[in-house]
Amino acid sequence: MSARVLIVDDLFPNVKLLETKLALEYFDTLAALNGPDAIAICEKGLCDIVLLDVMMPGMDGFEVCRRIKSNPVTAHIPVVMVTALDQPSDRLKGLDTGADDFLTKPVDDVALFSRVRSLVRLKAVTDELRQRALASRAFGMGDPLITAAAETGLDARILLVEDRPGSAERMAMALQQHHRVTVEADPHNAMVVAAEGDFDLALVSLDLTGHDGLRLCSQFRSLDRTRGMPLIMIAEAHDRPRITRGLDFGVHDYLMRPIDRNELLARARTQVRRKRFSDVLRGAMQASLQMAVTDVLTGLHNRRYLESHLSGLFAEESMRHRPLAALILDIDRFKAINDTYGHEAGDEVLRAFAERVRQHTRPIDIVARYGGEEIVVILPEAGLAEAHTIAERIRERIQDVPFSVQRDSRLLSVTVSIGVAMRCAEDTSPSEMLRRADEGLYEAKAAGRNRVVAQAA
Amino acid sequence: MSARVLIVDDLFPNVKLLETKLALEYFDTLAALNGPDAIAICEKGLCDIVLLDVMMPGMDGFEVCRRIKSNPVTAHIPVVMVTALDQPSDRLKGLDTGADDFLTKPVDDVALFSRVRSLVRLKAVTDELRQRALASRAFGMGDPLITAAAETGLDARILLVEDRPGSAERMAMALQQHHRVTVEADPHNAMVVAAEGDFDLALVSLDLTGHDGLRLCSQFRSLDRTRGMPLIMIAEAHDRPRITRGLDFGVHDYLMRPIDRNELLARARTQVRRKRFSDVLRGAMQASLQMAVTDVLTGLHNRRYLESHLSGLFAEESMRHRPLAALILDIDRFKAINDTYGHEAGDEVLRAFAERVRQHTRPIDIVARYGGEEIVVILPEAGLAEAHTIAERIRERIQDVPFSVQRDSRLLSVTVSIGVAMRCAEDTSPSEMLRRADEGLYEAKAAGRNRVVAQAA
Repeated sequence: MSARVLIVDDLFPNVKLLETKLALEYFDTLAALNGPDAIAICEKGLCDIVLLDVMMPGMDGFEVCRRIKSNPVTAHIPVVMVTALDQPSDRLKGLDTGADDFLTKPVDDVALFSRVRSLVRLKAVTDELRQRALASRAFGMGDPLITAAAETGLDARILLVEDRPGSAERMAMALQQHHRVTVEADPHNAMVVAAEGDFDLALVSLDLTGHDGLRLCSQFRSLDRTRGMPLIMIAEAHDRPRITRGLDFGVHDYLMRPIDRNELLARARTQVRRKRFSDVLRGAMQASLQMAVTDVLTGLHNRRYLESHLSGLFAEESMRHRPLAALILDIDRFKAINDTYGHEAGDEVLRAFAERVRQHTRPIDIVARYGGEEIVVILPEAGLAEAHTIAERIRERIQDVPFSVQRDSRLLSVTVSIGVAMRCAEDTSPSEMLRRADEGLYEAKAAGRNRVVAQAA
Repeated sequence: MSARVLIVDDLFPNVKLLETKLALEYFDTLAALNGPDAIAICEKGLCDIVLLDVMMPGMDGFEVCRRIKSNPVTAHIPVVMVTALDQPSDRLKGLDTGADDFLTKPVDDVALFSRVRSLVRLKAVTDELRQRALASRAFGMGDPLITAAAETGLDARILLVEDRPGSAERMAMALQQHHRVTVEADPHNAMVVAAEGDFDLALVSLDLTGHDGLRLCSQFRSLDRTRGMPLIMIAEAHDRPRITRGLDFGVHDYLMRPIDRNELLARARTQVRRKRFSDVLRGAMQASLQMAVTDVLTGLHNRRYLESHLSGLFAEESMRHRPLAALILDIDRFKAINDTYGHEAGDEVLRAFAERVRQHTRPIDIVARYGGEEIVVILPEAGLAEAHTIAERIRERIQDVPFSVQRDSRLLSVTVSIGVAMRCAEDTSPSEMLRRADEGLYEAKAAGRNRVVAQAA
């Protein structure tokens, strides 16, 4: 994946050198000579990845990274720190700010480019999710990016695939401080466990006895059940070629032995945060879709859902010669409730009414708010008699138990009129069945309300 | 990206050989010895890419590919035909069925693997979109996959970057049969044109005079405005390394000189279809989000939208010490309309009522359906007097022009009562302002309806 790489360094020659190398690899580059400029470029969405020097006058790289990673607008942009600092404490400090990697100069170019490519590829998938999230924000459905960026990356479920007992124990001990850890020595068992469990991260040793750990990583990345799970390889110095291979096919990160406990924690946390960032965006999208077919006040399906599902259901049940019935329920004198006790009390009644109707229908029925105080229930596989019985049961239930409103300070007696109809052979569309149910409702109202009228074809 | 590769070949040794090679590259493999089995595996979503032999007893590879590409459930799965057939007509036939590539045996392994990797990476992004589309289908919002898969790939806007006049002319002539073509010889101009135009595809010569065409491809893939545009490289035999490089960073396909006219058309069409497939899914997602905040009957914003926007607007306007007003409008004796003329007439009145309210408000106002026959209008930067004037204008407009219902067969006189309020300094939330507007509405009803009552704090 080609990408726009932002190089942040206060020394112009360093910038130039990296620009030249990256251009040879067909990357596009931008440069910033200080932290604030770098942050501004990120906020404008002008780059896909940041190569960040640490020691800069004014705002140092640690602070720049911290700000990029804590801002919902920029949190998704990968940051690789590239620095002359070579103390483990610097490295750790960098990773703790949320950096995706921390490379010490002189940097091996092949390693750098393979890391940049891998991070940019992972970002391309997140970007697609992010675009949808931005759209949902524009429509006023809350801002999932804020929730996503606030994710701590703690309390995760981690799978550790390692068959060296001492090493497994040490890593598990460290990780258990913040996470729940499952250790698995056998790669086949690991595959089964991973497919069944809901892990936020897997760490895989490349040197399992008699098994290439990288193959396990490849399988994790291939299978539906596990491809969303971040992967960190545990490698030896001589594993360089396999590390590059792994990054190339989608492994997210790696740790070199001997494993530094704090680096382990920092890298695990970064991966968990990244995964949850995507999970939050996916969840928000799902919720938005759910919203589109849900009535705000009652939580029932809305008319849109009813109409889009009813025609399919209608056609299907006619094809199979199975009965299909409909109820239209309308609260009696609902306007009087609103006028006498206020709209809020009216809303309370509507919510409780919806809940009672739901309790007296089956999971396969469609229960939808149709208009102001009207609910439609579609009953698959039910004939007129059965539908009438269900309607009658609902009517009694509404009449017998008063509705409590105004924070339980008042009890209201409410009744409902219900029209019932079933699909008949001559119907060409569900609206004919609904029209008959509506006629039944009209008759029920005309006959004095609080009753059920079934309308034969 | 690791992936599950489905190998389809009736000869078991061929399957084994390819399996072994792919396993060495850390791909997961599955095998099918005939077409129907291959299609079943694709339909179950068990593979990410298909390597398809052509000559098989029973259903041949052309038919298998045609079926995969025309089924909405499988149309997104890349297919690479790998065959001993070496006639241009076979190749063309394969591409015409929708195959993403057609490779003739003996196949160069490096070329095959780089192609597989590139197709699988592109699929990963589409998969994310597809998952959302499947969710929206589950919620009953239509099936965007059916529309997406039905895309023909014709009538596209194509950018051709080529500075050899003869070649440019021949290609443009061929493409113009089905598409609109813009030819650009200069890479810098091409960049400008591409960023401004809305192209469905760009074809880029790698051998532009004094310029590396691959760099232009990289820039197209990097920049926001152009990264969604598919790219086909035009290459010479000696360009192999750059082709691999291009596929690796996200170029979608390539054509070798001398260019076969029909192959050009087939490959262009495949890329246009692929792009539009994604575009349809994105559009469907956007539409679903829009639905979630729109009232089905009137097309106005719904209560969810109102509530999520109002609190932000309220806080903002108080901070800036700017006025903010609200109207609550309620159709007088609406229940009588429903009871006398039926629900459909009631719905007609509601739709027309909503439209008139919208016509008499400003684009910055929020107009939302609040309940059955109630509309709320939020007026930023309006004080009580101004809001009253607007309300009075709407009231008159409703009263003066009768509503036509039942397919224009009947005219109904309708009136509206309106409560008006504005934010006052003591308000801690917008619900207090709305409550006062509701009190105004109540007074208007009590005083005989068809009037506006402004309620001071």
